[in-house]
Amino acid sequence: MNPDGPIPGEQALSWLDAHAEDRKRAGLSRQLRPRRPDSDLLDLAGNDYLGLARDKRVGGAAAAAALRWGTGSTGSRLVTGSTELHSELEFELARFCGTQAALVFSSGFTANLAAVTALTGKNCSIVTDANIHASLIDGCRLSHAQVAVVGHCDVAAATRALATKQTERAVYVTDSVFSVDGDLAPLAELAGACREHGAALLVDDAHGLGVLGEGGRGAVHAAGLAGAPDVVTTVTLSKALGSQGGAVLGPRKVIRHLVENARSFIFDTGLAPGSAAAALSALTTLKDEPERAERVLTNAMTLAVRLREAGLTVSDPASAVVSVRAPSADAALRWSEDCRAAGVWVGCFRPPSVPDSVSRLRLTARADLTEPELERAVDVITRTAPKP
Amino acid sequence: MNPDGPIPGEQALSWLDAHAEDRKRAGLSRQLRPRRPDSDLLDLAGNDYLGLARDKRVGGAAAAAALRWGTGSTGSRLVTGSTELHSELEFELARFCGTQAALVFSSGFTANLAAVTALTGKNCSIVTDANIHASLIDGCRLSHAQVAVVGHCDVAAATRALATKQTERAVYVTDSVFSVDGDLAPLAELAGACREHGAALLVDDAHGLGVLGEGGRGAVHAAGLAGAPDVVTTVTLSKALGSQGGAVLGPRKVIRHLVENARSFIFDTGLAPGSAAAALSALTTLKDEPERAERVLTNAMTLAVRLREAGLTVSDPASAVVSVRAPSADAALRWSEDCRAAGVWVGCFRPPSVPDSVSRLRLTARADLTEPELERAVDVITRTAPKP
Ligand SMILES: Cc1ncc(COP(=O)(O)O)c(C=O)c1O
Ligand SMILES: Cc1ncc(COP(=O)(O)O)c(C=O)c1O
Repeated sequence: MNPDGPIPGEQALSWLDAHAEDRKRAGLSRQLRPRRPDSDLLDLAGNDYLGLARDKRVGGAAAAAALRWGTGSTGSRLVTGSTELHSELEFELARFCGTQAALVFSSGFTANLAAVTALTGKNCSIVTDANIHASLIDGCRLSHAQVAVVGHCDVAAATRALATKQTERAVYVTDSVFSVDGDLAPLAELAGACREHGAALLVDDAHGLGVLGEGGRGAVHAAGLAGAPDVVTTVTLSKALGSQGGAVLGPRKVIRHLVENARSFIFDTGLAPGSAAAALSALTTLKDEPERAERVLTNAMTLAVRLREAGLTVSDPASAVVSVRAPSADAALRWSEDCRAAGVWVGCFRPPSVPDSVSRLRLTARADLTEPELERAVDVITRTAPKP
Repeated sequence: MNPDGPIPGEQALSWLDAHAEDRKRAGLSRQLRPRRPDSDLLDLAGNDYLGLARDKRVGGAAAAAALRWGTGSTGSRLVTGSTELHSELEFELARFCGTQAALVFSSGFTANLAAVTALTGKNCSIVTDANIHASLIDGCRLSHAQVAVVGHCDVAAATRALATKQTERAVYVTDSVFSVDGDLAPLAELAGACREHGAALLVDDAHGLGVLGEGGRGAVHAAGLAGAPDVVTTVTLSKALGSQGGAVLGPRKVIRHLVENARSFIFDTGLAPGSAAAALSALTTLKDEPERAERVLTNAMTLAVRLREAGLTVSDPASAVVSVRAPSADAALRWSEDCRAAGVWVGCFRPPSVPDSVSRLRLTARADLTEPELERAVDVITRTAPKP
């Protein structure tokens, strides 16, 4: 073999080099930045909305479960992967959110794949909001259904699409809280449109659970839709509940159907007992301390008001997410890096990961932010803002 | 409202009732059976091949990590969801399996979706073995690639499909160990065919890691393909490593590409620190006690030989899985229930979850099965066998 010649097999994946170059040239390179346990960055970028991921009680419950039940569930939920801990979590989630039943998944991502695919299919239409989460979109792509995408939060367009569907069945699919800007879907109106046209409503309440509704029962509960026979909700255990995993909530027959039919349930190992126990403990903590949910919104509001007072263009927060407009993609990136260098970790969303072409800083409020932390955040974000 | 009239909204999901009825009539109903912590069933149904899910060291590592790092990773791996624990696990997995790099996911399912979709695409052909795992199939469906399915372990057909591909790029996708029967893919031959035709080889080594190859380095390592520039491997942390999660292993540029492009990586919360720590500790344990890997195979062989001596039709185990033929779907179900009633938990695979139309008991061997347990298993399975 010629030592300077091509390495055998090298060519099969050589297109990755050009692809990486293109992204780099477009300023789209991304890198992992592992956290340290003792990081003193002020976290306004994560989704631990209730501050429970590091709560001693929640951590203790996870630790005890890993030792008592084992570190893995050891199999599919249909074989050895269901423990009484999973059942208890399902019972408590359903009770808290006001649905007949619940089913726990290894992630919110796989819960969404399951809900969309198992509740639709070839002879079904899906109508979706243009800005739904990637996992719902992938569910639609896997569904074999007729998919129609309508404008963001456009109830009239949604109604028209449901009214003119060419199939017997239809499901409208939406996030309750849209992750980029934290704005809310008009759930009551959408439910009305669905009801009128015999469609089911599937709502991803990932960013609503623990933050919105009475004591954090979520946006679906707040809209009075939790127990409805034609509404199905998905949630994640990885945001307000400080753990990992996801769940589908709804009528008992929906849950039974998912158990028997959803590929991402059947062909996936059950959630680790430690993560199930953490979510269960976080739920108990939230029930005991319902004011945590309100504090998320209060803190989001405080951040928004103060940043606006400082002259920035800021969203009206309806959830934990506060969106701050940046003049350009480059400016947004530099701004977020400057914040980080000054000790405040914020999210940076730029095209193509935004639904419009607007770049922004994305801040997430937590229930446990202190007044000095809020002050520091506002000070740093304002001080590092791009000069107009 | 007429109290005896239809409940508003009830109709949208009423098709589920008929669907459930159909399944019930076909004998396909399935139910969750939650385990208790003190269950004394002998487990020949789970995937905890090395017996590490309940190992004190592994449990202790998970518990410590939940308390030190928190119960959740709090965000996408690209934002707050990467900890030094994730990096350490990635480094050790790559080193153990002999690849340049690794990337950890929240499940083997999402790792497979990521690897298939991000490495293929519209201008690419996928050739797959007919019996690949559901998560790989869903990856193919999401990929927008040209998909050609060839016969199970049919190298000639695979070669023909690769030779006649209509696209510039191609990827051959296969399990290393097929989950139903535990049989092996001819990896070396497939790699040769791929190399010959400029295709990449993507191998799901979910059931190979921890069981096959030198000290449990997996089937890809055993075939001498671990460091190859045109081979990508996926593994799960939820079987031999007794935890939850998955990983993709391969050339550094593949991992970088996944970080920037794979939807089920970018739009999913990072693996819980406790699960990352458990997998890391299990890997350390396996390195310290490499004989565990061999014991899985020895125990599988012992089960197979003794069951065959008792007159049953049993597979030649090439992995942890031992497959025992049943005369019919009903007989298989009754047999597995009788085993369970007698204290031995075995899997039962029937159509439509089998690639052929053959129903079987599916037993999985563990490294920590004792001689009395092996005896009890053989005794119960033989005693409850359907009379010919
Ligand atoms: C709206 C929405 N749905 C679903 C998910 C997926 O949930 P998980 O991260 O638990 O898989 C996320 C975030 O990750 C999300 O923001
Ligand atoms: C061959 C194979 N690949 C992938 C998976 C998915 O891995 P996980 O359960 O960790 O999501 C499984 C089993 O669940 C499997 O058997």
